[in-house]
Amino acid sequence: MTASDQPQVPDLDQLARQVADHIENAEVQALLDLVAPLHPADIADIMERLNRFEQNFVFDALAPEEGSQVLLELEDATREDVLADIDEKRLAPMVDEMESDDAADIVGELDDEVRERVLRQVPEESRQEVEQLLTYPEDSAGGIMALEIPWIRQNHTVAKAIEMIRTHHREIEDINEVFVVDRDQRLVGEILPVGLLLADPEAKVSDIMKTEVVSVPPEMDQEEAAGIASKYDLINVPVTDDNQRLLGVITYDDIFDVIEEEDQEDISYMAGTGEDEPAERSAMKAVRERGPWLLLGLLGSMAAGQVMKGFEQSLQANVMLVIFLPAVMATGGSVAIQASSLVVRGLGGGSFAFQGVPLVLWRELRVSALLGLGLGLLLGSFALVSFGDSRFGLCILAALGLVVVNAAITGTLIPLVLKRIGIDPAVAMGPFITALNDVMAVTIYFLVVVTMLSGHVPSAAVR
Amino acid sequence: MTASDQPQVPDLDQLARQVADHIENAEVQALLDLVAPLHPADIADIMERLNRFEQNFVFDALAPEEGSQVLLELEDATREDVLADIDEKRLAPMVDEMESDDAADIVGELDDEVRERVLRQVPEESRQEVEQLLTYPEDSAGGIMALEIPWIRQNHTVAKAIEMIRTHHREIEDINEVFVVDRDQRLVGEILPVGLLLADPEAKVSDIMKTEVVSVPPEMDQEEAAGIASKYDLINVPVTDDNQRLLGVITYDDIFDVIEEEDQEDISYMAGTGEDEPAERSAMKAVRERGPWLLLGLLGSMAAGQVMKGFEQSLQANVMLVIFLPAVMATGGSVAIQASSLVVRGLGGGSFAFQGVPLVLWRELRVSALLGLGLGLLLGSFALVSFGDSRFGLCILAALGLVVVNAAITGTLIPLVLKRIGIDPAVAMGPFITALNDVMAVTIYFLVVVTMLSGHVPSAAVR
Repeated sequence: MTASDQPQVPDLDQLARQVADHIENAEVQALLDLVAPLHPADIADIMERLNRFEQNFVFDALAPEEGSQVLLELEDATREDVLADIDEKRLAPMVDEMESDDAADIVGELDDEVRERVLRQVPEESRQEVEQLLTYPEDSAGGIMALEIPWIRQNHTVAKAIEMIRTHHREIEDINEVFVVDRDQRLVGEILPVGLLLADPEAKVSDIMKTEVVSVPPEMDQEEAAGIASKYDLINVPVTDDNQRLLGVITYDDIFDVIEEEDQEDISYMAGTGEDEPAERSAMKAVRERGPWLLLGLLGSMAAGQVMKGFEQSLQANVMLVIFLPAVMATGGSVAIQASSLVVRGLGGGSFAFQGVPLVLWRELRVSALLGLGLGLLLGSFALVSFGDSRFGLCILAALGLVVVNAAITGTLIPLVLKRIGIDPAVAMGPFITALNDVMAVTIYFLVVVTMLSGHVPSAAVR
Repeated sequence: MTASDQPQVPDLDQLARQVADHIENAEVQALLDLVAPLHPADIADIMERLNRFEQNFVFDALAPEEGSQVLLELEDATREDVLADIDEKRLAPMVDEMESDDAADIVGELDDEVRERVLRQVPEESRQEVEQLLTYPEDSAGGIMALEIPWIRQNHTVAKAIEMIRTHHREIEDINEVFVVDRDQRLVGEILPVGLLLADPEAKVSDIMKTEVVSVPPEMDQEEAAGIASKYDLINVPVTDDNQRLLGVITYDDIFDVIEEEDQEDISYMAGTGEDEPAERSAMKAVRERGPWLLLGLLGSMAAGQVMKGFEQSLQANVMLVIFLPAVMATGGSVAIQASSLVVRGLGGGSFAFQGVPLVLWRELRVSALLGLGLGLLLGSFALVSFGDSRFGLCILAALGLVVVNAAITGTLIPLVLKRIGIDPAVAMGPFITALNDVMAVTIYFLVVVTMLSGHVPSAAVR
């Protein structure tokens, strides 16, 4: 099949319907004929569209090599289901089939007991690799690196290096870079296969290799490692120990995944969805993941309510004070999230031009003063017109302005503080900062209103 | 310099201070000695830490080849500054130096008039390439592809293909994949350089190439193209026309950038920060970008205030009704954002197991019913205890429950509707949905309270 015969992207919805039909009619051969020529990522996407019975039906029909690839492409929630239902005897050869990093990921997802049983059925070499990789934290450079390393020696000739790749690294799929090591297996350079292809076969590897090699320690956070790959445009990130000895390689496809995963993690912090994900079907899991964030927000706004209770007298005097409160609270919350999200984005991904806290804060102060003034004038004018009372209008302008500036300061400082004390600053972009702001906004609002209006009753109150 | 001599990541803060010192003392040679051995991405990061005068000083000291690389690595806001200050005569050779896609990006950022003048000073070939690339939308596959394509013919032998790479594609940096075309320049296969390295020199390319090639049309959105690269683990995404003729290549480093950029775009929609970014120093730009989102939120919450005004009588009867309002509004807003962010994440990145609207909605309904019940019981009990009135407690439970379920439905449907009418559904994750929810939450709250309490005055009111 040539590229031009092929549709550019298969219609997965339609394929999923056909697969479901074949399953209903128990047409196993027709199912296989339909599914087998597809890319494992497409088979996985089709499975996402099926119910659990159908998912297992398709998965069980696949050959182990194919099944192992499909397993890796499934969404977390679906893979959890499939792994819960799969026979260990069927899983073991799939694990053996995978690259070491993928095998460790899958085995790492199993319950301790199942893990033991599966590993016992995996050949010695694969088992040792998996066990070695599982010693690193899941989201560290070590936790995502593969142990299959295409390496050659610096004192070899190009011809000998090619022979080395042919005899020793043939089993490594898709070699797109070759690492050069010294006698002690320390990383001293890198070379692209095309470099070997175009070089004189008698040239020495050390004379044609690139020596400015960036490598990372296995303990490094995966986000930082991906940031380095992205910054220096690396296809692979070599992982080395303290003596610069080559331990493993993080490949570009894992870097795609990490960039995506870390940003999605930030989004889930902002939205307060925890580990709930789009492919998840269990309502209980969603409740468990989202509930705590909502509870946090609820407690914050209940506290805000209690603050209001403290100002009951002012409210009794003029209940209409309250109609400006939603605007003040909402605007403060939005400003806090704007400021915190910029600081978090600046801190993460290594892309922050860190001009120092004072400069960042100074900019936020100016920005929020301008925004507070602009929005305050708008809401204040509206208050003036509604109540026909200029003092009250001024009061709303002051309250909103203060709330906005306060929100900007809080939104800037909290992620910096969280980072300093070792908590992911992304937490500060969501319900946490909103809850905090609710309490502060209500307090500021009433304090300003009570202070500025003391003794003065806005005219609307005596309509 | 070997890898082991080198610190793994340079201390950019310290380097920036040294650079600033050299500039202050006008030590140009010392500055160059410090900066020249660094990676362009590091030089760019150092510049981010300097003021505008210092940035220009460093940039002017760089050789054109180096300057062109540094320019590409700067944050958008900083690059804008540098481009505004640079001499056109100096920019032209830098543009010529760049790969076609990078050159088009830079030239595309210039004002029309400057662009014309710069292009007139660029050699014919580069100019045509840039002009061709500028015909594609900036965020399309065509807009990010490079025209430097390492291609070979399918009917060549491996030896001849290698010769072809040596003679025709030597100027292409970092070839990590070779594209195979037929006589009409149509893409028919791919091969990794390592494949050529290990193959029999007399073998025919068509016999050893991979024929299942995924390619994308130039009009495809860059996010979709990056999603395909990530899904199928492609180092490069070839871009082809309707006749499958090879137009260009999107390389892995651009895919890193697009994944990052698109997720950051989602985050900026959620936070309502528009195109404001961490490296931005202008306060006015921040105000322009963030202001409209705040205004949207302000208008929503002002409308919510007006709804409250409509229930003035109920509020006069018991002003303390209002202390539960922040909790109801905030919870509703959070639930709407949770639901919409999951739908948006599901729709984007191609990772959504699209089970159909009814199934997604049904899950959100169950989840929100459970959450509404749980949180409603909590807030209701609190209301009961505060007011010592069970009917009022029940009333708060009902109001919060309804607001939560309504928020979940709205949060689920709005991104789907936006997607259907061609608006980026990510818009629905931020201030827009909060503003909408504010109005709905206040309305539901008072309707429920007024209906359920009609005639009944909660005891706390007569304290």
